[in-house]
Amino acid sequence: MSLDNRIQVYEVGLRDGLQNEAAFVPTDDKLKLAGMLADAGLRRIELTSFVSPRWIPQLADHAELTRRVEKRPGVSFSALVPNLQGLESAKASGLEEVAVFMSVTESHSKKNINKTVAQALEVLAEVSHAAIASGLRVRGYLSTVFGCPYEGKVDPEKVIELVHALLAMGVYEVSLGDTIGVANPRQVGSVVRRLLTEVPAEKLALHMHDTRGTALANVLAGLDAGIRTFDSAFGGLGGCPYAPGASGNLATEDLVYMLREMDCETGIDLERLVDASMHITSLIGRTLPSKVLQAEIAQRQKREKAEEKRGRQGPLAAASGGQR
Amino acid sequence: MSLDNRIQVYEVGLRDGLQNEAAFVPTDDKLKLAGMLADAGLRRIELTSFVSPRWIPQLADHAELTRRVEKRPGVSFSALVPNLQGLESAKASGLEEVAVFMSVTESHSKKNINKTVAQALEVLAEVSHAAIASGLRVRGYLSTVFGCPYEGKVDPEKVIELVHALLAMGVYEVSLGDTIGVANPRQVGSVVRRLLTEVPAEKLALHMHDTRGTALANVLAGLDAGIRTFDSAFGGLGGCPYAPGASGNLATEDLVYMLREMDCETGIDLERLVDASMHITSLIGRTLPSKVLQAEIAQRQKREKAEEKRGRQGPLAAASGGQR
Repeated sequence: MSLDNRIQVYEVGLRDGLQNEAAFVPTDDKLKLAGMLADAGLRRIELTSFVSPRWIPQLADHAELTRRVEKRPGVSFSALVPNLQGLESAKASGLEEVAVFMSVTESHSKKNINKTVAQALEVLAEVSHAAIASGLRVRGYLSTVFGCPYEGKVDPEKVIELVHALLAMGVYEVSLGDTIGVANPRQVGSVVRRLLTEVPAEKLALHMHDTRGTALANVLAGLDAGIRTFDSAFGGLGGCPYAPGASGNLATEDLVYMLREMDCETGIDLERLVDASMHITSLIGRTLPSKVLQAEIAQRQKREKAEEKRGRQGPLAAASGGQR
Repeated sequence: MSLDNRIQVYEVGLRDGLQNEAAFVPTDDKLKLAGMLADAGLRRIELTSFVSPRWIPQLADHAELTRRVEKRPGVSFSALVPNLQGLESAKASGLEEVAVFMSVTESHSKKNINKTVAQALEVLAEVSHAAIASGLRVRGYLSTVFGCPYEGKVDPEKVIELVHALLAMGVYEVSLGDTIGVANPRQVGSVVRRLLTEVPAEKLALHMHDTRGTALANVLAGLDAGIRTFDSAFGGLGGCPYAPGASGNLATEDLVYMLREMDCETGIDLERLVDASMHITSLIGRTLPSKVLQAEIAQRQKREKAEEKRGRQGPLAAASGGQR
């Protein structure tokens, strides 16, 4: 296995996924899910967001969740912080990493956080410096990198400028977000190759949304261009395709499956990842969009039926109260 | 627009899609759909399969459908023919193109058509020669090119051997099928590049299934390697993800959207294609998997609501019997 084939997956389902689900998932279940994700081999897990419960009630338990999560060697838990107040709460809960976020485009920035890009940069500088001074690692998110719902096309030079600004603040990695899922592989390849003339690959990640089915093709283009870190959400959590403006997160299962088949090493056990997605499916009561998850569930049901036929009751039937 | 950016889409929804749907779609509706697909700019449309109604009752109306379909200049309608008898029926109905099919792997061939690969080759030679002698064009399908449900990995040299055999029969194009949706982009690139050392690109097409979400990434790999023809099914018809063994056709909308965004020219109008998919959705009564279709329906509903607010009733509300 060459170093070049090792890929990092940054799991955002508990944050970017759950914040877009209608149901509130109880804290105990979130803790169980975080454990299952770590068991599956995920080493970078975003747990929640320290925003006001008025904005995102689904993540209102951020303080309790981050305080109670079981720390494990080699597993980094993180949370989004929008401002200094959020950072203080994140620090108090014992997190060692936080993430800051801003938009590339003025209109999205105004609509999303009611700040201009320049004002957002000031907040991010303030938060990043305070976090780093306290010994925390800081990840940066850029939204609307490949397209904006209000402005359409986005100038790659604007992206490069902001990547440099975030890195200058001490952010260790910038995740480039296709917030509304409009990127295409040719564009991703072109933007990434342009960025890599000025920024090393280990400082960049791609955060693709699958709103139009192009997320894996965009990952492939990013991979070919040299990116080695990708964000995704287990089960494809958070993307309800029937709601206008749905986010449509790339599913971790689909990402891991494709990478594995391409002989890329993620360290993630697909079977255990599917266990976590089946657990959240039972909690939120809707089928998740991951195709690999659906194929895997169908396979398990098939095996289960075959086992039942041979007179033994399998674990799926037992779990669903099935009888011989 | 350079020649290299022109992509042909071969539409298989009415055949490969409908044969995997539970419901029988009435012939009049199929005729309407064929017209809508041609209106959307599709120039190569597979209508049906001349197999026994006992095997595929959904396509039992093959003779009537192909006889009644409205011929249009520049639009080529085709149908699958498994044997000489099927070919005779196809000829009688006035088709100018037929497609023949076989598996690359022995186990799949035996299970699917109860013939060895050598026996299947004999049948295909017989049918192709008879078709060409009658002035028909013949397309060839190879199944299990990138993976077999019984044998696993497939030897690319076996694929090349069969591509040569089909071309030697006078087949004008060979479509390489990822029947069970297990191909990965690295493999697709490698197999295609190997083939292109011996066969010109215009003799090849890719037929990707999206069972594990990798179809568009595989298309991208094929495109990068030089392929310019891709098979797909409008709406992603035929792929019911909850049924074990479901086919999961690549959706024409998703293919066309990605290609358009990459400045590739297909000649297909996405809006009109969505009209066709919305029509079949209303007929079969289940949501189709195409992500672009879902995003487009959400957009239309949003516009509709905005128009309703302004006191006018839009076409979607009118169509669904909605009231002001």
